[in-house]
Amino acid sequence: MIDGKAVSEKVLAEVKQAVATLKARHNLTPGVAVAIVGDDPASQVYIRGKVKTCGELGVYSEKHELPRDATQEQVLALVAKLNADPKIHGILVQSPPPPQIDERAVVEAIKPEKDIDCFHPYNVGLMLIGDEKGFVPCTPQGVMRLLKEYGIETSGKQAVVLGRSNIVGKPMAVLLSRKGVDCTVTIGHSRTRNIAEVCARADILVTAIGRPKFITADMVKPGAVVIDVGISRVPDATKKAGHRLVGDVDFESVAPKASFISPVPGGVGPMTIAMLMSNAVRACCMQNRVTL
Amino acid sequence: MIDGKAVSEKVLAEVKQAVATLKARHNLTPGVAVAIVGDDPASQVYIRGKVKTCGELGVYSEKHELPRDATQEQVLALVAKLNADPKIHGILVQSPPPPQIDERAVVEAIKPEKDIDCFHPYNVGLMLIGDEKGFVPCTPQGVMRLLKEYGIETSGKQAVVLGRSNIVGKPMAVLLSRKGVDCTVTIGHSRTRNIAEVCARADILVTAIGRPKFITADMVKPGAVVIDVGISRVPDATKKAGHRLVGDVDFESVAPKASFISPVPGGVGPMTIAMLMSNAVRACCMQNRVTL
Repeated sequence: MIDGKAVSEKVLAEVKQAVATLKARHNLTPGVAVAIVGDDPASQVYIRGKVKTCGELGVYSEKHELPRDATQEQVLALVAKLNADPKIHGILVQSPPPPQIDERAVVEAIKPEKDIDCFHPYNVGLMLIGDEKGFVPCTPQGVMRLLKEYGIETSGKQAVVLGRSNIVGKPMAVLLSRKGVDCTVTIGHSRTRNIAEVCARADILVTAIGRPKFITADMVKPGAVVIDVGISRVPDATKKAGHRLVGDVDFESVAPKASFISPVPGGVGPMTIAMLMSNAVRACCMQNRVTL
Repeated sequence: MIDGKAVSEKVLAEVKQAVATLKARHNLTPGVAVAIVGDDPASQVYIRGKVKTCGELGVYSEKHELPRDATQEQVLALVAKLNADPKIHGILVQSPPPPQIDERAVVEAIKPEKDIDCFHPYNVGLMLIGDEKGFVPCTPQGVMRLLKEYGIETSGKQAVVLGRSNIVGKPMAVLLSRKGVDCTVTIGHSRTRNIAEVCARADILVTAIGRPKFITADMVKPGAVVIDVGISRVPDATKKAGHRLVGDVDFESVAPKASFISPVPGGVGPMTIAMLMSNAVRACCMQNRVTL
């Protein structure tokens, strides 16, 4: 069982220590600005989580709320202000914005060195090239950290990544096939044929398609490492909220067959914000040309 | 047999027509600057080829030669001058430069809209994201064009890309797995185990590893499409130059088994410069905000 909660706490403790060191040695405090347009309740929950985590680690944070009918110009003006603010080292614009906002243009307006989500094409390109001066997207970076923490051998292994999103699937495939990681990576998606057979080849299976319990035991090689990045809500009358969160993997049937498996919740989920905080510290160091 | 020479001539004829249209309708001439540091004979050959092709198509070109001991500052000053020159829509800096030059810094100094090689991280990132406002690297773009010209179905097919270079392997994998192309792509490389077995799964095999005749018939699925991007020199006393060019594929043994196969030379090779010229026309259109 891969305990993402425990590993994320370890990462957050490292970040907290790094924040203290930055303060003591350089009198610097990493600063993160989170911006949200509109009042989508799920987005508000994410934002609050980020602000709260910043507080716990000693990271300075600002929350910027723009009305649901904000214009592109207003959003870009906010980004420009945050780009110029030396207290702010990371800028997060909560996705998705309302339809009148061109999200890609907003992302490209963020200074790459403050783009700790790694959404800017410049940082995405650096990641593909393997140039380490950029950032790495948080969720795939969290998966890599989990593999490392559990001592999972990657070199020469067959990895299958299901899903080709820009924030998970594609960067995940890139990171797993990098030199030094050296998996032989297959990217599967909705058009993949014989998907069960493709998955069953995987020594390491990373799934990020958002289809509840799609991966069943017959699709998994005995002894495989199974990392579940999917999160879906399914109705559940026994829960107060009326739903529960489930992953892409049918945990009960797959777990006995896997050597390592990450649950949902409590697997990859908590790693994302931990890696985001780690990126914020790195951004602060880079912008101030200091090392820890 | 995939005749890259014939397809490249078709692309070049389209480009020539586009250049004539741009001149007639908008009084615009696409302009390309090629820069070289030092006098490496192979690089000189490439550069001459590019300048010659520009001439044949009516594309304006300039050749800039810096001495072998040029400094980083001199190279960056040249790039800055070309960035600012409205006659120049595409800037090519011949690789590799001498060791005192930081090639990545030079590439990043090129304005992304003039980076028709698609070496700048910003353009690389746009390609990964699937944002079509950027450029696509010429060799993988040439392969995609060959697949299209020969009516090769890609959706749901298993593609194997051998090699993970930044200019061929990685972008090739990205393009083949894109929505609308929809291959299930596996990226193999020097650390891949059971490479014969991995290759033998491929409906479409693209190889770019530079190992002469590495791919033999037993590694190829009957009816597969085999695209050979490898180019190696092997000694050949019967040739005037003392060597000949061979690909990654053992053509004689593989050809009878493949449904389509690209030879070396005369396969992917001629497509690269054709796509580069096509990118130059696109750059000219974008920088002048005109369409053809």
